[in-house]
Amino acid sequence: MTSPIAVQPQAADAAASARAPERHRVVIVGGGFGGLEAVQRLSGLPVAITLVDRRNHHLFQPLLYQVATASLATSEVAWPIRSILRRRPDVTTLLATAIGVDADAHRLLLDDGGGLSYDTLILATGARHAYFGHDEWEPFAPGLKTLEDATTVRRRILLAFERAERETDPEQQAALLTFVIVGAGPTGVELAGTIAELARDTLPPDFRNIDTHKARVFLIEAGPRVLAGYAEDLSAYAQRSLERLGVEVVLGQPVSECTADGVTYGDRQLAARTIIWAAGVKASPVAEWLGAPADRAGRLMVAPDLTVPGRPDIFAIGDTVTISAPDGKPVPGIAPAAKQQGRYVAEVIKARLRGEAAPAAFRYKHAGSLAQIGKRLAVIDFGRIKLRGALAWWIWGIAHIYFLIGLRTRLTVAVNWLWIHARNQRSARLITQGRNPPDRPVEP
Amino acid sequence: MTSPIAVQPQAADAAASARAPERHRVVIVGGGFGGLEAVQRLSGLPVAITLVDRRNHHLFQPLLYQVATASLATSEVAWPIRSILRRRPDVTTLLATAIGVDADAHRLLLDDGGGLSYDTLILATGARHAYFGHDEWEPFAPGLKTLEDATTVRRRILLAFERAERETDPEQQAALLTFVIVGAGPTGVELAGTIAELARDTLPPDFRNIDTHKARVFLIEAGPRVLAGYAEDLSAYAQRSLERLGVEVVLGQPVSECTADGVTYGDRQLAARTIIWAAGVKASPVAEWLGAPADRAGRLMVAPDLTVPGRPDIFAIGDTVTISAPDGKPVPGIAPAAKQQGRYVAEVIKARLRGEAAPAAFRYKHAGSLAQIGKRLAVIDFGRIKLRGALAWWIWGIAHIYFLIGLRTRLTVAVNWLWIHARNQRSARLITQGRNPPDRPVEP
Repeated sequence: MTSPIAVQPQAADAAASARAPERHRVVIVGGGFGGLEAVQRLSGLPVAITLVDRRNHHLFQPLLYQVATASLATSEVAWPIRSILRRRPDVTTLLATAIGVDADAHRLLLDDGGGLSYDTLILATGARHAYFGHDEWEPFAPGLKTLEDATTVRRRILLAFERAERETDPEQQAALLTFVIVGAGPTGVELAGTIAELARDTLPPDFRNIDTHKARVFLIEAGPRVLAGYAEDLSAYAQRSLERLGVEVVLGQPVSECTADGVTYGDRQLAARTIIWAAGVKASPVAEWLGAPADRAGRLMVAPDLTVPGRPDIFAIGDTVTISAPDGKPVPGIAPAAKQQGRYVAEVIKARLRGEAAPAAFRYKHAGSLAQIGKRLAVIDFGRIKLRGALAWWIWGIAHIYFLIGLRTRLTVAVNWLWIHARNQRSARLITQGRNPPDRPVEP
Repeated sequence: MTSPIAVQPQAADAAASARAPERHRVVIVGGGFGGLEAVQRLSGLPVAITLVDRRNHHLFQPLLYQVATASLATSEVAWPIRSILRRRPDVTTLLATAIGVDADAHRLLLDDGGGLSYDTLILATGARHAYFGHDEWEPFAPGLKTLEDATTVRRRILLAFERAERETDPEQQAALLTFVIVGAGPTGVELAGTIAELARDTLPPDFRNIDTHKARVFLIEAGPRVLAGYAEDLSAYAQRSLERLGVEVVLGQPVSECTADGVTYGDRQLAARTIIWAAGVKASPVAEWLGAPADRAGRLMVAPDLTVPGRPDIFAIGDTVTISAPDGKPVPGIAPAAKQQGRYVAEVIKARLRGEAAPAAFRYKHAGSLAQIGKRLAVIDFGRIKLRGALAWWIWGIAHIYFLIGLRTRLTVAVNWLWIHARNQRSARLITQGRNPPDRPVEP
């Protein structure tokens, strides 16, 4: 280990250097789509890779809303990172939280006071939901980025129905049966459609005192249409389909307040006990770590080769960066974009190690956009080809099952989806981790 | 509603009485094996049943250790109670916590200040793990009764390996790789065998700095043998099988201390970061509620017809009661015993409603005992027939899949078990709900 500041070599460092002291050290922060793709594309090169993530699992975010709506189990959308990489002896997986970068010393700083020296650093640390300067809304309007977020949202949705069943005051009952989703991007649309179906198809036979058909689902969007990134006719179709499922779509209305009682938009105060936030994200603080320029959402502005300006040995990819696509629009914060960036960075590193010319600047290729609307419809925007309806749903389903990791997950997800379709039964209607169990031990 | 103390009729009551004011009101507390069986056997009678549980799900406790050891997902061992009973219009399911009984007023008291009037009450409130007067051990040695217990134990087991991977001090590393299970009943045996296999078969290819084969699993039992309820030769076989899996079995040694550093038994202080408590239970406080006699574990002593002495309209069943089997031994706290009691109570109620003679006193019939030892062996004690080894494992597996609820769960559990056998891959290796994610929102 040759890092000049490593007076006391830290555990992780010592272990890594013991294994492969001569290899080019690549440290990757974040085991999401971008980070994992970089690891996979660096296979076979003379590098020693350390993948750092503060969670032990890779999360398949495109289906996280299905955990939040009781359709899938947590273990069907998440897999241990070190298990995914078990056949890669060149990769060390480290469960640790990165807290900064000492770029001059070429060192990633970890929360245990230690650090990792790198020859090349790839930051793929993602984003979290954001409240446009209203962080005080978060307790009332949880977002959907982690497994815990999903089980929190699931608990709140299911508890609202349970409390409504016990409530005798009609006004309170109506508020308990009102669900608000803020933000009509793909996640908002998918949440709204699935909650509407939960109330309409799954839950009615289970309750005795309430009619869950009376539940109201609001999808509130500040912009002029749902699925703003899609073609206009697909947006219109998605909106009609949602409305047919009973979702009340409110457009052009930014939410101005979220409280325990509900939301305010325009002049309207809507009493709702369950609010889910699907609007806006904030990047991880890598731009701050590096003192690099960022946009309003905190996304680091990377160079055309995805390096941090002035730091050719540091790449940043995925939701934590902003860069323009060939059409001038920003590259969207979706899995395929992060994967393309991970692949590109691996190519640049490969060229450098071989002493070849650097690849041309990163060019994002938009493969298409897919969103599910309830259990039988979807919209797909492949650019020239646009699909909607039942056929689009089949393509959506097959594509998502294809991208899941492992045959085991594919089988169990297929079984669960089959049950939703054939029987309206959702597999994971569990209320957990709330304040409910009073005898929960305190952790040491 | 004619309850004399119902000055302000409470929500639950009002709802129940609105539906069926003339029917005999049966209130059942607890949706475990006993409570659910009673509900099912009361089908077709002129009764209005209200099933109260503080959790929204029925838990298949015999497989809970598989959630704790990352083999199954939470939603594969738990199902929403109201979904199980959706085709029973005579049953109202209520998510509520019972806090007492006003036996003179024939009223179950709930934590929201309300209550439920009953004509017949069935208490099936179960038990929780207990520390023999050392509740201060609980933070260091969690037990295994709820889904949260299971995900807590799972997190601790998986985090211990993660921390060992980062640890450089050999002594600390050894303590992180030492797992202690206290209590060698079926749950303790099953936990010990599965953790040993996790370390030996599943995890080795995933780690770079530690050899997970070096993990030590201790099974510490105060009594003279493992599986004390089984025939002696099966106990001996189970012990030999565990030892072949690498488990260190310590018999005749009560644990005298549990701390963050490890356990003490006899003269030995064993450094261990992960301790799991599988010894001893404490009944729910129904005996206190009723001022009725109880044994040392708080189990209510019921009359031969499972009523509470002096209260013919209150039955108590399952793990919260103690009663003798025909052989003079106490009825064991297992699912079949609770189910037999639920069935018996339904028979008594049926006879009373029809004006027939009461059935003879409850007689427990022991069908058999089954315990899994690792993924390929089991022991089965059917009394006259005793089985062990691979055949016993198949019977164990088929019996458990049979008793799961719903074809969907049976399919996904079978898929997950197949993967464990064929690939050593465990489906639910997720570290969740710890202090790890620092950006977790505070709940309102």
